[in-house]
Amino acid sequence: MKMVEGGVCAAKGFQAAGAEAGVKYKDRKDMALVYSEVPCVCAGTFTTNVVKAAPVLWDRELVENAPFVQAIVVNSGIANACTGKEGLDCCKAEAKEAADRLQIPENSVLLGSTGVIGMQMPVDRLKTGIAELAGKKERSVKAADDAARAIMTTDTVDKQIAVSFEVGGKTVTMGGMCKGSGMIHPNMCTMLSFVTCDAAISKELLTKAVKESVADTFNMISVDGDTSTNDTFLFLANGMAGNPEIAEEGEAYETFKEALLFLNTTLAKKLVGDGEGATALVEVQVVGAESKEAAKQLAKSVICSSLTKAAIFGHDANWGRILCALGYSGAAFDPEKVELFFQSKSGRIQIYKNGSAADYSEEEATKILSDEEVTILADMHMGDATATAWGCDLSYEYVKINADYRS
Amino acid sequence: MKMVEGGVCAAKGFQAAGAEAGVKYKDRKDMALVYSEVPCVCAGTFTTNVVKAAPVLWDRELVENAPFVQAIVVNSGIANACTGKEGLDCCKAEAKEAADRLQIPENSVLLGSTGVIGMQMPVDRLKTGIAELAGKKERSVKAADDAARAIMTTDTVDKQIAVSFEVGGKTVTMGGMCKGSGMIHPNMCTMLSFVTCDAAISKELLTKAVKESVADTFNMISVDGDTSTNDTFLFLANGMAGNPEIAEEGEAYETFKEALLFLNTTLAKKLVGDGEGATALVEVQVVGAESKEAAKQLAKSVICSSLTKAAIFGHDANWGRILCALGYSGAAFDPEKVELFFQSKSGRIQIYKNGSAADYSEEEATKILSDEEVTILADMHMGDATATAWGCDLSYEYVKINADYRS
Repeated sequence: MKMVEGGVCAAKGFQAAGAEAGVKYKDRKDMALVYSEVPCVCAGTFTTNVVKAAPVLWDRELVENAPFVQAIVVNSGIANACTGKEGLDCCKAEAKEAADRLQIPENSVLLGSTGVIGMQMPVDRLKTGIAELAGKKERSVKAADDAARAIMTTDTVDKQIAVSFEVGGKTVTMGGMCKGSGMIHPNMCTMLSFVTCDAAISKELLTKAVKESVADTFNMISVDGDTSTNDTFLFLANGMAGNPEIAEEGEAYETFKEALLFLNTTLAKKLVGDGEGATALVEVQVVGAESKEAAKQLAKSVICSSLTKAAIFGHDANWGRILCALGYSGAAFDPEKVELFFQSKSGRIQIYKNGSAADYSEEEATKILSDEEVTILADMHMGDATATAWGCDLSYEYVKINADYRS
Repeated sequence: MKMVEGGVCAAKGFQAAGAEAGVKYKDRKDMALVYSEVPCVCAGTFTTNVVKAAPVLWDRELVENAPFVQAIVVNSGIANACTGKEGLDCCKAEAKEAADRLQIPENSVLLGSTGVIGMQMPVDRLKTGIAELAGKKERSVKAADDAARAIMTTDTVDKQIAVSFEVGGKTVTMGGMCKGSGMIHPNMCTMLSFVTCDAAISKELLTKAVKESVADTFNMISVDGDTSTNDTFLFLANGMAGNPEIAEEGEAYETFKEALLFLNTTLAKKLVGDGEGATALVEVQVVGAESKEAAKQLAKSVICSSLTKAAIFGHDANWGRILCALGYSGAAFDPEKVELFFQSKSGRIQIYKNGSAADYSEEEATKILSDEEVTILADMHMGDATATAWGCDLSYEYVKINADYRS
């Protein structure tokens, strides 16, 4: 497997574009198109929030029932959530406009929206944007960059990755982009994440691979504990790599899954590393847990603890908060057996063992906690299960961004 | 029922004191004593965190098995949590010192600690503090004030309340104090809360009343979603009011429960109103829910949403975040049926109905959200169940306090 350029345009036959539609933001790109020259097999996962945005309802229907898909139209600025019938009508209008412009069926157009909840969408501006996107689309690094930037809200950087690998003697390429910075506590999915791939793969196996991979990546991150109404992960595979179709489990499927896990892990970490106001990417590794479920509960409890996050922002080795968060996770363990470590590129120290503080240097701990990527390692000594979760610290800036997000 | 002065000293036969022991803080009172002239019946609830502080383990044993209790010794500064055997030995030393000084049995001395997790306790300073407390204890408003201030950590004000009411022709008085400002997300209990009462009541009924009341008050508040290792609620009843013992359910028990509910609600609201960095007390009222459990889930989900809390700090009527938090609560409902209102002393407005925004004035909404007490009312239209939860907004100050709490 090797890294390649081009994000969602890296895989054969995929084009992209970004446009300034003025949905809500001014003077920046706020609409993106991802388009495949040929029909695609598709898999997706969506928010578990009871309140689902209109484009989530639209996409879920297509992912389940459409014979194929060929395009994704995304806007930032307004989420098209809590918009009632008007919101669903807007989805129809967008899909119709895209279908006309791209000469593809309406039910092959997937949609995504991110931004303020509750505001109605400016349908005319969206249509004008779609016309522009259809005219500009191309397969280039610049087009992928434009699309990745257009879907940003409070994100400070665009988030892309692409890799290539061999399947049955053919080079397969897989590339993705995602956005998300606040309201990040995905459950079945992240905010918005789109992956394109030129592999030939059956819908059944693609769906299986996507579900498993999302559970260990996007569902293991948290910025603020708020599960969005718009979480969407979509994977489009168009078969243009020419590989023998991956239609059963085996070596080719494992290779595909490994690439997908790497890609999703990378995107998920980019996402929380750019969490609203974040100054550090925090990784929580739980080992020695009683079961996989317990390991996940423990890792997520620490990554979601506001007090732990604030301590890391302050570079303060306040490990009691970590033990406290493990304690209220719902997983059983013996506090006397747990061992805790801090780790970064600056080193690794043990901070807790045998029921109380280990003998460590506060200075060394502060040095480790001042790095941009910090790992908290918890060995529960209860079994063999492991899990990793990712998040970020909690800073003044998070509050500032969210105290007045709408203006 | 009427309000009276004197906090934990309001009920007959209860004395208190505060002392400067220098446990961790300098130049302020950091130890408190609550003492009854006669033996008390006791009930308590404690943290559900797997990691329990040493004084929690100590108290739980006494509440279950001791024939009676007569004193509570509390310190702030260090939590005596994650301190292993040394922490438990410290509890024994404290109880022994208090027993000697107060001439009561060791197993009638309850303990409470709050502050930094993981640091060992300075046993000698605690003993000196206990000697001072025993010498100073008295039944006065000043003594209750001293005790209430001594247990504060990041609290900005002390939190006390007392009421009196009639039982069987006798005046019964009930008074309490509590502390807590961060790491507040009680589960079975709040940080530290101590209530004294001169009623005669059986242990069985007292335990029942305490459990039910805590479930609807302290367990319905959240400052930051972190359930502490030290949460403790203790209720001491010494019978000195001379009322016929409340030994079965009936009018006297109902009167007692009503007073307890009022007292616990008041203390719980004081607690979150003084949440770390809080500028507003937020109340979430859920009505029309399918079940009591669903109502509680919905109310707690909104009160815990970082994004909702940050929006209230910014006086921003970003109601989409409220609907989003209802949506990920785990309770089922129809987003089209929900109605949302904002309410404060400045007025009341409907902000959401029929699946999208109601026609309200942003100016009026901002005015309501600028008040010090703000109510979010959600009518789910699913049934008859109701629940109320309390919390506070999320400010820069919260992050500041917690980024460097230990220094």
